[in-house]
Amino acid sequence: MRAEIISIGTELLLGSILNTNTQFLSQKLAENAIDVYHHTTVGDNPERIIESLKSAVQRSDLVITSGGLGPTEDDITAKCLAKFLGKPLALHKPTYRAIVRRLKIHGHSMTRLIARQCYVPRGAVILPNETGTAPGILCQTNWRGRKKWILLLPGPPRELQPMFTERALPLLRRLARLKKEYFIVRSVKIAGLIEAQVAPRVTDLLKLKPPLTVGIYAKPGEVELKIMAKSASKEKARQIAARVERKIRKRLKEKVYGVDSQTLSSAVGALLRKKRKTLAVAESCTGGLFSNLITETPGSSGYFLGGVIAYSNTIKTAVLNIDKGLIKKYGAVSPPVARKMAQAIRKILKSDYGVGITGIAGPAGGTAKKPVGLVYIALADKKKVICVKNRFFGSRSEIKSRSADTALNILRLELMK
Amino acid sequence: MRAEIISIGTELLLGSILNTNTQFLSQKLAENAIDVYHHTTVGDNPERIIESLKSAVQRSDLVITSGGLGPTEDDITAKCLAKFLGKPLALHKPTYRAIVRRLKIHGHSMTRLIARQCYVPRGAVILPNETGTAPGILCQTNWRGRKKWILLLPGPPRELQPMFTERALPLLRRLARLKKEYFIVRSVKIAGLIEAQVAPRVTDLLKLKPPLTVGIYAKPGEVELKIMAKSASKEKARQIAARVERKIRKRLKEKVYGVDSQTLSSAVGALLRKKRKTLAVAESCTGGLFSNLITETPGSSGYFLGGVIAYSNTIKTAVLNIDKGLIKKYGAVSPPVARKMAQAIRKILKSDYGVGITGIAGPAGGTAKKPVGLVYIALADKKKVICVKNRFFGSRSEIKSRSADTALNILRLELMK
Repeated sequence: MRAEIISIGTELLLGSILNTNTQFLSQKLAENAIDVYHHTTVGDNPERIIESLKSAVQRSDLVITSGGLGPTEDDITAKCLAKFLGKPLALHKPTYRAIVRRLKIHGHSMTRLIARQCYVPRGAVILPNETGTAPGILCQTNWRGRKKWILLLPGPPRELQPMFTERALPLLRRLARLKKEYFIVRSVKIAGLIEAQVAPRVTDLLKLKPPLTVGIYAKPGEVELKIMAKSASKEKARQIAARVERKIRKRLKEKVYGVDSQTLSSAVGALLRKKRKTLAVAESCTGGLFSNLITETPGSSGYFLGGVIAYSNTIKTAVLNIDKGLIKKYGAVSPPVARKMAQAIRKILKSDYGVGITGIAGPAGGTAKKPVGLVYIALADKKKVICVKNRFFGSRSEIKSRSADTALNILRLELMK
Repeated sequence: MRAEIISIGTELLLGSILNTNTQFLSQKLAENAIDVYHHTTVGDNPERIIESLKSAVQRSDLVITSGGLGPTEDDITAKCLAKFLGKPLALHKPTYRAIVRRLKIHGHSMTRLIARQCYVPRGAVILPNETGTAPGILCQTNWRGRKKWILLLPGPPRELQPMFTERALPLLRRLARLKKEYFIVRSVKIAGLIEAQVAPRVTDLLKLKPPLTVGIYAKPGEVELKIMAKSASKEKARQIAARVERKIRKRLKEKVYGVDSQTLSSAVGALLRKKRKTLAVAESCTGGLFSNLITETPGSSGYFLGGVIAYSNTIKTAVLNIDKGLIKKYGAVSPPVARKMAQAIRKILKSDYGVGITGIAGPAGGTAKKPVGLVYIALADKKKVICVKNRFFGSRSEIKSRSADTALNILRLELMK
């Protein structure tokens, strides 16, 4: 089965709202092994809505629209569908009664505008709207002897999402006799390498064709390899994906930090928890971002003892007890100060690990010897303290982000030893 | 001029990534009074890319694609454009040299894959990529005697956005001799009120029709009123927008914290700078987020002295010198502890203001008396210390974010007194 998605709404064409419905529907369709080859967006314009329905029906078996089912004058999707199918709009009484009931609860009464939502193309299957008023509409038509399905969903995500998952999908499965095909998506996440370094090591995998494919995606601070495996049984699909994951792990070793929804922060958290170790940080140029990332993981209070944002020399000396002479001699952005920060916070909070980050996030403050993007990251434990020099590029925000990610990865690699 | 946007990438069809480029481009085109009637997304498939270029050129004057310009085998947009135009791909030497230079800085060298990005359809105008490697490509073609422009942009937003705004738009203005119509967009940003509280105060403005419109958008932690004014002269458009802005400010008073790209953090920063005051923070449940937001603003080291992430009781007592008995008596999440945190960090760092944040970010750790989302925010200055009790809802991440935004707004309102 091949599906496509049409988003309807002038506000999308103006960029006033972000199209999250298309991503949601695409994900759900992918999980159900339904191929999607096109997304289209058109405004609240009858010609273009009908034209897009026509193109879609020609090339796809299932056409899903979102938006344009509401009560205002520019909500015309149902009317356009009726015209396209050559069927009249008819009042759907159960929907009318359901909306009257719903309005009553909120102390409102039916109006002419609201009643517009109860008119649907004759013969359509109606999907009740549990979280709003406009119902979903499912119609069947034929194109060159092939059965085609057109599904109209309301635009608000809080109405569209439950309606699609709970109502439309089971109905489609039954009506369209969807083949029971299972789709497994597994994301393998890599830190410390850029896309151009990962790609050559998995060239063969990137060339795989369905039912087993691997895609590569560069994301801020990481690279993702996405394995997609399709099979008639869930177990089989999982096995195929697992086999490829093992291959990737063998080639990229400790550069693989996790899978799926894991983050660098959660991977570090899991390692700290497993080894029963605690962490403290003294961060300067990252301004709290490192701590913020660490504390995004639920339960981080179990291993993160806290930190100091050493944004001024006062706090470096008053709280971290760093010698003024040391800062004067080497400068606040220097390996000796980074090391001292890591050691000091470790000592003060009695943690197993101490991280120290100092650098120049920019845009101002750089010099020829110490340019914007120069960042020292130190890691101290009971026995030693290491310090890594980095030169990052990008905006202030990007330099902060790369510094924090790199510090997390240095800590992760140390914990894996 | 009529434009349309084609997004290219199988990962979009799979729902693996959210299509933010289309929204960005749509907004920019709307601001420049260029109409957009279609958005399309296709995968990394040559037939469908070429087919979508063909449809687009037939109905629009400007076709903008995003994605598929990178170094991997499935990046085929330039190749498809060359085929569509019937022109060969040719090596663009300045781009090759620029990429070699860029790679060298990072200690990498040119590879066959990376070099693919330097091949562009012969005769194309090249837009340098300041933040990545793949250049943008602008080609001109004819359809039934009409000049048509095709603009290829790289997929990563951090490359696409500056390239479009700084390179492509000025070039298009000149080449396509865009009508001199000026469009002013002014965002008025509001903190401390929700959309349902702002809307009734601007009902009349929300009903305005072009050339002057006002839209309302609820964003995390703030509400935005977007004024859009179109006119033949820039000055005129600006005056019209300014008149509406004054109306909004008169009605919403100090709830308006800024305009356009200003953030709560930059508004607070500007006030601190103006009043020559300094700030320090002791944050617990926000885990570094408050400091991270403050330090996103360039030059924040001028007023932000630093902070402590008091994630454990150890750091509360060892660094902030908070009495153990106080924590035992009231609990770490309590008004007395929030107040003490604000006062302690102010005293230690000798800052004018001290902020203290303590709460329960969840998902675990809540009780009937102290539920998840309970957050105390304290603000101390020379004379007094105030404490505000909040009850936030949402995920861990949302509670952290609302806490930090609310703390920023409390500080802003105090600074405005």
